[in-house]
Amino acid sequence: MNEIRHVAVLGAGLIGAGWAALFGLCGRRVTVIDPHPHAATRVADAVAQARPVLAALGLAPVATPAIGYVASSSQLDADVALVQEALPEDAALKRAAFEQLEPFIATDTLIASSSSGCLPTPMQAGLVHPQRLFIAHPCNPPWLMPLVELVPGRYTDAAVLPRAAAFYQQLGRRTVQLSGEIRGHLVNRLQAALWREAVHLVASGAATVEQVDQAVTEGLGARWACCGPHMIFHLAGAERGMAGFLDNLGEAVEQWWADLGTPTLDDETRRLLIEGMQAATRGREVAALASARDQGVTHMLRAARALENG
Amino acid sequence: MNEIRHVAVLGAGLIGAGWAALFGLCGRRVTVIDPHPHAATRVADAVAQARPVLAALGLAPVATPAIGYVASSSQLDADVALVQEALPEDAALKRAAFEQLEPFIATDTLIASSSSGCLPTPMQAGLVHPQRLFIAHPCNPPWLMPLVELVPGRYTDAAVLPRAAAFYQQLGRRTVQLSGEIRGHLVNRLQAALWREAVHLVASGAATVEQVDQAVTEGLGARWACCGPHMIFHLAGAERGMAGFLDNLGEAVEQWWADLGTPTLDDETRRLLIEGMQAATRGREVAALASARDQGVTHMLRAARALENG
Repeated sequence: MNEIRHVAVLGAGLIGAGWAALFGLCGRRVTVIDPHPHAATRVADAVAQARPVLAALGLAPVATPAIGYVASSSQLDADVALVQEALPEDAALKRAAFEQLEPFIATDTLIASSSSGCLPTPMQAGLVHPQRLFIAHPCNPPWLMPLVELVPGRYTDAAVLPRAAAFYQQLGRRTVQLSGEIRGHLVNRLQAALWREAVHLVASGAATVEQVDQAVTEGLGARWACCGPHMIFHLAGAERGMAGFLDNLGEAVEQWWADLGTPTLDDETRRLLIEGMQAATRGREVAALASARDQGVTHMLRAARALENG
Repeated sequence: MNEIRHVAVLGAGLIGAGWAALFGLCGRRVTVIDPHPHAATRVADAVAQARPVLAALGLAPVATPAIGYVASSSQLDADVALVQEALPEDAALKRAAFEQLEPFIATDTLIASSSSGCLPTPMQAGLVHPQRLFIAHPCNPPWLMPLVELVPGRYTDAAVLPRAAAFYQQLGRRTVQLSGEIRGHLVNRLQAALWREAVHLVASGAATVEQVDQAVTEGLGARWACCGPHMIFHLAGAERGMAGFLDNLGEAVEQWWADLGTPTLDDETRRLLIEGMQAATRGREVAALASARDQGVTHMLRAARALENG
């Protein structure tokens, strides 16, 4: 169970650059595989954003991360212990990249796909050593949100996920290990379910984009940062917990479920969402809003960690 | 636009006792209308739970709240300026209580229903002065979570909701004023939408109760405490914001929507949820878990307020 010291990141988009920043700032040697001339700039931007957050969260970022760049997998050094794939969400493109990569890494080098939309088993199909491939899906950005979802494919070796979990935990992440693959894993399914109703409320004219967002930030977010949805209802059931909740409110919940919307992202709905967001942001730029999010989430995570540590 | 100094709370269950604690600790005179012999004990328990939370949030709870008890609406003093109804979720029961109440309050006394499941217009039907009735739906517990949803019925006077908003804001609450009524308002619809998928993930065997809750607390909650669901996706769209997100990921989201589950709370699902919750709580009592929730959420809200105040 050797430690993972040298990591390759395949693709320096938003997620790949974020991973590279996290790995590098946490003292791992990083090789970014991306032929794009802007790869180094993107990673440097992510490092600049991630550094104060990791410092605030007590993760002691290194002063000078060791991040190198190559244009192709064929230029990788032999000691790469894990490849974190972060290519666009296109299963065929990812499979081709894995087949191209495999001859240039050791047989036991781990391959972690960041995919939210593709399932691991089809990605294992073209590999000579498929037992080392799995999903390690981060939230966005990877250096901010703690959770990494670890998902095995049919051919993933049983020892791989525990080893990966130990690695991501060393970087201050929290891991959830699923027993099998499911489209969207957990986080994106739950997020999509909430957003579907959010879109319905806007599209049906029941509320504005800003009102729906306020309902979440002021009515649900702080609670969900401490208790999951099952626990919330367990606590709403008084002494009998979940059983009491289901007896008292199970029927009401089923009525709400029956009344939830099933919008589509047609042109008119897209227009409502884009215009509603413009009204809600009042001209503030995406970069400034993202910076406010990072600062806010960092405060929330610090509060959560302080609580855990008594 | 006179200030609301004396509030009556109709029903001292979990929500009513919580309202009474909030009103009393924030210096309002409170009369609880409940014939149950345990009403005073329940309210005293809520006061004990709420006091440290309100103090931690800078709301300066009074040392000795002025909370009185009567068995029936007929015993109310004439200066009650707002009646906060918190009876069980039964529309007929609530309507009967309002009709019984109306002769004993002034014509301009506000009537706020805490209902999450009943709509306001049908509750206005039997009133002589229906223009003063509206929904003021708190999250649970009312003294902890900031949001109060204000919902007008068809006959609600236009001046009522702004006056109510000012009152709840004086108690440290945040208000969202809906333009019309919708089953479950915003918070419970959004919460139900997320929980439907949470139940599906457990019922289908994809994840345990504890794993689903962890996906929310570690992957979504801290972000939702700062940014609503629309803002999250606006920030995932890079420079082009929501428009970029919809172009890049709109199709993927629609595929996730199509794959979401539609569970029912049948006996087998209820058993899985209750047993899953037992496994997740590892024998910890509901009261201890609720206390941990209150402490955790208080930390989150303090962090959020510190951030707002720079």
